[in-house]
Amino acid sequence: MAVYTEISDDELDALLDQYDLGQALSCKGIAEGVENSNYLLHTEAGYFILTLYEKRVNAKDLPFFLGLMEHLAAGGFMSPTPITAKDGSNLKEVAGRPAAIIEFLDGRSVRRATPNHCALLGQTLALLHTIGSDFKLTRSNTLSLASWRPLYESCLNSNGSSLEDDLLPDIAAEIDFLEKHWPNDLPSGVIHADLFPDNIFFLKDRVSGVIDYYFACNDFFAYDLAICLNAWCFETDGSFNITKARKLLNGYREVRAFSQQELEFLPLLCRGAAIRFLLTRLYDWLNQVEGALVKPKDPLEYFKKLQFHQAVTTVAAYGLD
Amino acid sequence: MAVYTEISDDELDALLDQYDLGQALSCKGIAEGVENSNYLLHTEAGYFILTLYEKRVNAKDLPFFLGLMEHLAAGGFMSPTPITAKDGSNLKEVAGRPAAIIEFLDGRSVRRATPNHCALLGQTLALLHTIGSDFKLTRSNTLSLASWRPLYESCLNSNGSSLEDDLLPDIAAEIDFLEKHWPNDLPSGVIHADLFPDNIFFLKDRVSGVIDYYFACNDFFAYDLAICLNAWCFETDGSFNITKARKLLNGYREVRAFSQQELEFLPLLCRGAAIRFLLTRLYDWLNQVEGALVKPKDPLEYFKKLQFHQAVTTVAAYGLD
Repeated sequence: MAVYTEISDDELDALLDQYDLGQALSCKGIAEGVENSNYLLHTEAGYFILTLYEKRVNAKDLPFFLGLMEHLAAGGFMSPTPITAKDGSNLKEVAGRPAAIIEFLDGRSVRRATPNHCALLGQTLALLHTIGSDFKLTRSNTLSLASWRPLYESCLNSNGSSLEDDLLPDIAAEIDFLEKHWPNDLPSGVIHADLFPDNIFFLKDRVSGVIDYYFACNDFFAYDLAICLNAWCFETDGSFNITKARKLLNGYREVRAFSQQELEFLPLLCRGAAIRFLLTRLYDWLNQVEGALVKPKDPLEYFKKLQFHQAVTTVAAYGLD
Repeated sequence: MAVYTEISDDELDALLDQYDLGQALSCKGIAEGVENSNYLLHTEAGYFILTLYEKRVNAKDLPFFLGLMEHLAAGGFMSPTPITAKDGSNLKEVAGRPAAIIEFLDGRSVRRATPNHCALLGQTLALLHTIGSDFKLTRSNTLSLASWRPLYESCLNSNGSSLEDDLLPDIAAEIDFLEKHWPNDLPSGVIHADLFPDNIFFLKDRVSGVIDYYFACNDFFAYDLAICLNAWCFETDGSFNITKARKLLNGYREVRAFSQQELEFLPLLCRGAAIRFLLTRLYDWLNQVEGALVKPKDPLEYFKKLQFHQAVTTVAAYGLD
C-alpha cells in the first residue's frame, strides 16, 4: 500500500487541461504498487489510473516503460495503454513528480494461485516476450548479475542484525558461483522482470491485465520464467509445487518454444532470480525507514527458495520431461 | 490511509452472490477513511465503495449509521446510499468483519477550503440537520461531555511525554469549566459530528457528497457547527479566518434559523468541540502503535483552537452581528 504524494485540486485540474479527458470527477489514492503513488481517476471520459513516479523510479527510464506499455497494448497484449496528451506526449508532471495517466483495466489479482492460473501466466509471459521482441527501445537490467556483488556489499555495511550474519557467508558463496557460471548467450529480449501475482489481473478465467512494467528490461527470456517460478510455484510453507511449475512451463511453450540451452540453464537462472530478490529484500530489511508505510518483505523466504534450486540438477525437478 | 483487511477472491464472490450487482470486475483498496478498510469495487452493475468495519467501529451501531445514510439519501441529501442485498439487508460480513456496499459518489474533497466552500458547507450541514430530524433511530454521542473526564484520566495514566505534562493541568481546568456550564436544552437531532474537509466532496462549485457517518449521533445541532468552525475556519498557521466563519454560519442560517440560545452558547460549544478532538488526538498520540500505518494527528493544533475560543465572549468573534 502506498500513496506518497498528495495532489491538490489545482494540480489535478492543470494536469487534465493537457489531455482530452474532460474534467476530473473524482480521484482516490489506491493501495496498489509499492514504488509509486497511484490514484484511481474518474474523468468525464471514464476511469483511469494516475501514477506519480516517486524517487525509486529513474525518470530517464520512463520513456522505455511507457513506450513498452504502448507497444505491447498495440500488439494485442493485455497491457494498459498510457493516455496520450494533446501534445502527443504520454509523460507529464504533477506535484513536482513525473506522472502518467494510464488506461484502467478490470480484473483482480489472485492471492492463492491455482495450477490453472500458472498455465495462463506461462502463456501470457511468452506472449509478452513475443510481442515485445520488436520494441525499439532498450534498457539494461540494473538488478542482474553485475548488481549482486555491490548490493551484497552494501548489506555488509548496513547496521547489523542477527538475520544477515547467518545469511551473508552463504550469499557470498552463491554470488561467486553465479559469477562463474552465468550464461551469456541465451535467447533475449524485453522481459517484465517482476511478474508477481500482484501484477496480473484475471477475469472469468482469462488474463485481463498485466501491470507494473517498472522493472522491465532486456535480459534472457528464461530469466523471466525463473522469476515467475520463484514467485508463483512455492507454497506459503516453503514447499515447491511441481504441478504449478509444470503448468507454468508448459503454458509458456505452447506460445514460444524453449531452446535446449534455456532448459539446461533454468536451475541456475532460478538461483540467480532467488539471489536478486533475496538481496533487494535484505537491503530493504536492513534499511527500514522509521514510520514508513510499507513493511519490508521477509528476505528469508527467498533464501529458502535459493536452497531449493541449489539442489536441482535438471528441469525434471520443475515438472518437465 | 488505511486498508487493514485483505479480501480473497472467494470472499468477494461470496459477498456479491448476496446482491444483484453482477460479478466483481475489480476491487482496489483505497486510501480513504482511517477507521475502516475501504475498497473501490467495480461490478457489472457499476462502481461502489465496499467498506469493512474494523474494531474501532462498534458493530451494534451499524444499523444506525447505515439507516441514517439511507434516510438522508431518500430525503434528497447528498449521502451515498447503502446497497440493499437480495434479502433486504444492507449489512453483510466479509473476512470476519461487518461489511456494506455503498453507492460511489463522484466529487473531490478540498485541501484548501475557500470562504465559498465554507458557505456551501454551512448550507449542507443545515440540510443534514433538517432532513435527519425525522430519522427514527437514535444514538447517543459517546464522545461528548460525559466522556471527556474519563478520556482525560486515561491520558493521565498513559506513558509520559513532555507534551501532555504541559497540557494536562489546563485541560483539567477546562473540563471543570465545561462540566459546570454545558447547556442541556439546545435544539437537538442527528448530527454528523465529524464533518472535516476529508468528508465532503465538491464537484463544479456544488457539494456532491457527504461521507463517513461513523461518528453521527444525537446531540445539539450547534455543536456540529462548532466542530465545523474548528475544522474549517483556522488557517494552518493557527490564525482564525473570520470570513470563513461568517460564510459558514450565514450559509447555515439560510437553511435553518439559529435560536438566540444557540448563538449565546456557540463559543462554549466551540471550546467543547476543541476539547473533544484535543483529547482523542492526545489519547492516540500517547498510545501510538509501533508500525501502525496511520500517523497520529498533532494534539497541539486543537489546544491552540481551544485557547482562541476561551478568549471569545460573543458570536461577533465568529463574524455574526
